[in-house]
Amino acid sequence: MKTLRVPEATVTRLSIYSRFLERLDRNGVTSVSSGEIADGVGVSPAQVRKDLAYFGEFGTRGVGYNVKDLMRYTLKILGLDRHWNLILVGAGNLGYALCTYRGFNERGFSIIGVFDNDLTKIGKRINELEVLPMEKMPDLIKEYGVRIGIIATPTRAAQEVADFMIKNGIQAILNFAPLPLNLPEYIEVRNVDLSVKLEILTFNLGFKSAQTM
Amino acid sequence: MKTLRVPEATVTRLSIYSRFLERLDRNGVTSVSSGEIADGVGVSPAQVRKDLAYFGEFGTRGVGYNVKDLMRYTLKILGLDRHWNLILVGAGNLGYALCTYRGFNERGFSIIGVFDNDLTKIGKRINELEVLPMEKMPDLIKEYGVRIGIIATPTRAAQEVADFMIKNGIQAILNFAPLPLNLPEYIEVRNVDLSVKLEILTFNLGFKSAQTM
Repeated sequence: MKTLRVPEATVTRLSIYSRFLERLDRNGVTSVSSGEIADGVGVSPAQVRKDLAYFGEFGTRGVGYNVKDLMRYTLKILGLDRHWNLILVGAGNLGYALCTYRGFNERGFSIIGVFDNDLTKIGKRINELEVLPMEKMPDLIKEYGVRIGIIATPTRAAQEVADFMIKNGIQAILNFAPLPLNLPEYIEVRNVDLSVKLEILTFNLGFKSAQTM
Repeated sequence: MKTLRVPEATVTRLSIYSRFLERLDRNGVTSVSSGEIADGVGVSPAQVRKDLAYFGEFGTRGVGYNVKDLMRYTLKILGLDRHWNLILVGAGNLGYALCTYRGFNERGFSIIGVFDNDLTKIGKRINELEVLPMEKMPDLIKEYGVRIGIIATPTRAAQEVADFMIKNGIQAILNFAPLPLNLPEYIEVRNVDLSVKLEILTFNLGFKSAQTM
């Protein structure tokens, strides 16, 4: 098989393009140009064409892309032509917010198990899910074929939770705890730092202030 | 003044470098090479040098960078050499999680006002903050010189909240509602979609499965 070397920034944009295409499709739009996609998501048309070119030939010169085809293809590339069951550890405020976040469901993700080691949280319900003790995790992972785990614990617990997940078959981790995890190379891990985008705002505000001086 | 044209990906990495430098500094490390920064955050050494070059000359060939100087400089570039007061609208689960998120404080951000239009939420406390009705927002923005607002409302309320914020002097918005806001060009806005990083995981898991076929 040909080895793809797709930059992570391209995958991120693909995720954004696919949302835009879904919106066009819902609105009954059937055809779109790279320029229209570019305008819709705030990048250059050349960037759109370059990103899509990693995955083959799309569209017809002068005609553009078929919205439904390109939407389905981007979803397939992202692995979203199927349903993903997830588990989450940490039934605090952030865990609660993530369990009730509608954006996950819209993309085919379902959190099917929530775990905590806090006895005051175990047994409580978040929507239809009961917060379970950690020792119930191995069976649930097997039963539902779970490959992805979300960590929404306090910082001090995150590494131990990640190790436990991996020992029980989790292959990819989305980590909301603000520290880098120390994990085997074959595990896919991404950290979500909620303040990075705030810092893009402060950078831009600072730059604007400097320009008006 | 010379116009900087700094790619957003560079600003994002600068934010990540600055965290890594803070960690080194806390651990008493005084000097670091671009290779060590690259290893620490998972990019190439050439990328580190290219990103820093947007902002001038740093480091000495063969000696590397002074950790404290580079840390302070990156923070200054990001606008984090000062304290930022923020307001937040939407006192639901996500709003609660954001108000208690320690990662904001660590970077100099304080949420000093939380607003909602739900009478069952107004008057409740999130840590030391009382949830206020929307009409209290204009005075608080003026009193605390707030320039940045966070939207953590349901999707249907987000545009109206953004318009109200801007009318009252907010210059930059961090939007957690999963829809693009329609705002004047001079407003800085960034959307946080919590599922984008999940899709990087599913992309990579899909690619690994394909490789072993």
